[in-house]
Amino acid sequence: MTAHHTKYTGVIPPVVTPLTADGEIDQPSLERLVGFLLDGGVTGLFALGSSSETAYLTEDQRSRVLEIVVGANAGQVPVIAGAIETTTNRVIERGTLSKMLGADAVVATAPFYTRTHDTEIERHFRMIADAVDLPLFAYDVPVCVHSKLGTELVLKLAADGVLTGIKDSSGDDVGFRRLALGAATLPGFSVLTGHEAVVDAMLLGDADGAVPGLANVDPHGYARLVASAAAGDWTSAKTEQDRLTRLFEMVFVAKGTSGTAAGLGAFKTALMLRGIIAGNTMSAPMLALGDHEIAAIADLLDAAGLR
Amino acid sequence: MTAHHTKYTGVIPPVVTPLTADGEIDQPSLERLVGFLLDGGVTGLFALGSSSETAYLTEDQRSRVLEIVVGANAGQVPVIAGAIETTTNRVIERGTLSKMLGADAVVATAPFYTRTHDTEIERHFRMIADAVDLPLFAYDVPVCVHSKLGTELVLKLAADGVLTGIKDSSGDDVGFRRLALGAATLPGFSVLTGHEAVVDAMLLGDADGAVPGLANVDPHGYARLVASAAAGDWTSAKTEQDRLTRLFEMVFVAKGTSGTAAGLGAFKTALMLRGIIAGNTMSAPMLALGDHEIAAIADLLDAAGLR
Amino acid sequence: MTAHHTKYTGVIPPVVTPLTADGEIDQPSLERLVGFLLDGGVTGLFALGSSSETAYLTEDQRSRVLEIVVGANAGQVPVIAGAIETTTNRVIERGTLSKMLGADAVVATAPFYTRTHDTEIERHFRMIADAVDLPLFAYDVPVCVHSKLGTELVLKLAADGVLTGIKDSSGDDVGFRRLALGAATLPGFSVLTGHEAVVDAMLLGDADGAVPGLANVDPHGYARLVASAAAGDWTSAKTEQDRLTRLFEMVFVAKGTSGTAAGLGAFKTALMLRGIIAGNTMSAPMLALGDHEIAAIADLLDAAGLR
Amino acid sequence: MTAHHTKYTGVIPPVVTPLTADGEIDQPSLERLVGFLLDGGVTGLFALGSSSETAYLTEDQRSRVLEIVVGANAGQVPVIAGAIETTTNRVIERGTLSKMLGADAVVATAPFYTRTHDTEIERHFRMIADAVDLPLFAYDVPVCVHSKLGTELVLKLAADGVLTGIKDSSGDDVGFRRLALGAATLPGFSVLTGHEAVVDAMLLGDADGAVPGLANVDPHGYARLVASAAAGDWTSAKTEQDRLTRLFEMVFVAKGTSGTAAGLGAFKTALMLRGIIAGNTMSAPMLALGDHEIAAIADLLDAAGLR
Repeated sequence: MTAHHTKYTGVIPPVVTPLTADGEIDQPSLERLVGFLLDGGVTGLFALGSSSETAYLTEDQRSRVLEIVVGANAGQVPVIAGAIETTTNRVIERGTLSKMLGADAVVATAPFYTRTHDTEIERHFRMIADAVDLPLFAYDVPVCVHSKLGTELVLKLAADGVLTGIKDSSGDDVGFRRLALGAATLPGFSVLTGHEAVVDAMLLGDADGAVPGLANVDPHGYARLVASAAAGDWTSAKTEQDRLTRLFEMVFVAKGTSGTAAGLGAFKTALMLRGIIAGNTMSAPMLALGDHEIAAIADLLDAAGLR
Repeated sequence: MTAHHTKYTGVIPPVVTPLTADGEIDQPSLERLVGFLLDGGVTGLFALGSSSETAYLTEDQRSRVLEIVVGANAGQVPVIAGAIETTTNRVIERGTLSKMLGADAVVATAPFYTRTHDTEIERHFRMIADAVDLPLFAYDVPVCVHSKLGTELVLKLAADGVLTGIKDSSGDDVGFRRLALGAATLPGFSVLTGHEAVVDAMLLGDADGAVPGLANVDPHGYARLVASAAAGDWTSAKTEQDRLTRLFEMVFVAKGTSGTAAGLGAFKTALMLRGIIAGNTMSAPMLALGDHEIAAIADLLDAAGLR
Repeated sequence: MTAHHTKYTGVIPPVVTPLTADGEIDQPSLERLVGFLLDGGVTGLFALGSSSETAYLTEDQRSRVLEIVVGANAGQVPVIAGAIETTTNRVIERGTLSKMLGADAVVATAPFYTRTHDTEIERHFRMIADAVDLPLFAYDVPVCVHSKLGTELVLKLAADGVLTGIKDSSGDDVGFRRLALGAATLPGFSVLTGHEAVVDAMLLGDADGAVPGLANVDPHGYARLVASAAAGDWTSAKTEQDRLTRLFEMVFVAKGTSGTAAGLGAFKTALMLRGIIAGNTMSAPMLALGDHEIAAIADLLDAAGLR
Repeated sequence: MTAHHTKYTGVIPPVVTPLTADGEIDQPSLERLVGFLLDGGVTGLFALGSSSETAYLTEDQRSRVLEIVVGANAGQVPVIAGAIETTTNRVIERGTLSKMLGADAVVATAPFYTRTHDTEIERHFRMIADAVDLPLFAYDVPVCVHSKLGTELVLKLAADGVLTGIKDSSGDDVGFRRLALGAATLPGFSVLTGHEAVVDAMLLGDADGAVPGLANVDPHGYARLVASAAAGDWTSAKTEQDRLTRLFEMVFVAKGTSGTAAGLGAFKTALMLRGIIAGNTMSAPMLALGDHEIAAIADLLDAAGLR
């Protein structure tokens, strides 16, 4: 595979990280999950993103997760590896390691924790691209990073060959549309949406693909959605999306906890209920969802025809 | 017309307020604009919304604008009147006056300026609906109000008959999709998007209609878009939307000013260039766009085939 | 009194607005409150600020409140009137009316509801100062207005004679200190803090005075605090402040409601318990504090030696 | 030293990290800086905080910085080490390493990058305190972490012996005062302010000490300020603070860059001008301040009597 020349399209799920009851990486579960996703028709795997609890994993655990995903994938689809680090040199260090571990592309956010500025964000991505010998995706996720990547900046970095694509989890659908329109003249650049509840709409608006956390739970559904859209059958795409959007309600089941624990906890719970992973343990300091939430998620799986 | 039983659909532009050079309401221009919009195929008129500079108008000017719009419309389509006031009693006062002036429905936001709470927002809408004898729309516009209406709260108020519809300018496309899905069982409730750049996508996701500021400039285009979507011709809808989204770039032309002055200033400038209104004066303390911006907007109109 | 030449110092409480059980202005209670404050040693009265529930009052009620405060004050101290309106022309209209009703100065915020810009904020204050023939205070309250007044801008407007003073409720103590330092060369300009829990500290940092909501409840305490600070007796000032800061815990008593309802509701409840006003009714859609909260506030008054 | 029983007071600067022109740790400069600070009368050293550019340093560089500071300090004052990591297990790993490297206490924030919740923040600090055998400081820095530590939560964790102290850089002076009042009954708990421009005011309000970034530049000044306050000489404390607050204007000199680059860049530039460190290089992607800014900072040093 010549990853540098791949145009990234289709369904590229951000792979969740199954944990054993004592919080270690659950290798057999992760391997089963990768197999399940590949069987479901995904066109790529995004490891070590927010949905992978990457912010909760130690450096060693991060490497372990990537090794397992790369191994289980065995070259079937490109593996995109998050290098989610506070600033430039840390991203470069992690990105370089990701290449050694077999990643086909890396994903970085703008600097976080520290206050930053557009000029520094631009320099950040340029330095990463220069230093890491892999295609580079920008990850626009203001809910985590607390700054928004500007449309003009992204298009400039794309035109200059710095960026191979963007994963947009910004919630700014107008900005996303402007980006997709602007990218129409940049044939190698991939515009991917992270919002699993509106993939049909984003595809109508020229998204190249999706990185839906919910695709961990139902990769086959997202593959059907993308196929319908590619065929111009928007009615079918929309019907599939509506079923998935109803299923997505699982992330709102848990109350009195963080959105992260509620959302990723729901995905893990659903995967446990579907028999793909062994348990729904979350990284500290988050707690796993309890019996009440598990029952509610089971009902949502039933309603979606997934049990 | 029995406004209470209307299901609001289609294109309902938030009518901009033309001003004379000395800042007074420009009645002839406003009347021409209403005629232009009706000719363009709009299905309703939203007066005294954010795009009408309602926050900049005195009480008397607000009434004057509504009178002119109601008069020029002459009953052809429903007129929805903003009652954009900080809190409940003020909304009720303005809403009651709006009915006297001929409005067919009123629009209110959550309380603003003051800190508020979900329980107070719910009580706010219930009290308005009880006191004002017109259908009530909620206006979800966090960029102005600095709180977001919760999906569950809106659906509850819709189910209870408090709300007739919602104008969503929240930028939260996932929340909008959840709302549209939840409203599927509420036949009289209208879910309207305020985001002019993604109307095709929102219609695919079951929006009932749109309140696009840009429809002031090109009502015919939005009418075609909505008609294509209604016919299931998503390719044509998307092509029309792309043209309009490129036109929408006009709101980003002005730099070093507020988003309000840049955006509404662009719409007024385009209407001036199209010969509908006499000038592009903005309310104090905003300044009108200057020659450089006017030229750039003229180019965008040319590119969109509107000159 | 030649209000234009007054240097505003000391304790200038933002007068709360007592309401009857059915939500009307309670004139006898408001008159008693003004008398209580004057007796307590206040050096000015700020009517129609956030603490007056000005955002909840209709235009007529706003005028009524100002008339009552001006009447009860009978020229004893300057009356500063809020003209808390969304934009310039509306502020000018209310400011002009305030002068007719007897105010000695007016207070305005930056534009709100609408998106704004520093250049527009500057123009806003300049236009108000030109149009309204009263000293003008800027009110910096980002929690309501959602923008922060820049230190450099305020000092420039002060140097140009546009602003007579500032009421700072920004919570930005570093900005406040920079402002106070910068104002050292502007002898007529008053820097007033709105943060009742740290008045001693702000006075140490060269605040000219305070606009503490809690001074409604204990004006005598704040007068003692200011007198101690003026005498250089910081130990006594700090001891008084500590007592008041403990009393201020009343605003955190109510849960499950807005900060406005909890805070102003506490002040009204305390005034009711002290026998100054007749009831603790709040403006719609807020609810009055209930028995549990009333009891907790009574305990705090006891602990502060105020019952 | 029995660090566990130390009450942390006085001036504890967050030590900046000098870099060579090619971005490596400048050991001789860092050693000179530690010596300069100890000579200036500081009572502790905070390494690997935000002011140390910790978010920009690789894991190895972080360890290197701590080793150098511990070595140069040679046990003279306690060394507090930041363990600024996204989540619990990562903090524990870094905290454990910090102890091995000779730190006397560790500092951790709430989880960042990920969305979190009060219940998770509480569990986070409890797990760290259980796992790391050093006194634990909470670092409240919403501008970086994007959540605010609640006053009640901090006091509860203090009462339970989980926290030894707090470094407050929240900018919430009311919350800080409530914390200091609440901590009056917790004799071993240290309340430290991070706001260098208002240390006098915070000490008046019962802060135990300060962690002022500007103390890198003028430790002697802050030591005098604290001594005056301890002696009850608030006039002298305030005079010293005013001089320092004027000096603090250096962080506003640079325009068109991030607040981090402007602020830390100013401190490094001032230390270079004072002859303590060799250069003012900043970590990528930040740029060092240029000639214009250097000249302006030199002027501020002159005005403060520091050259």
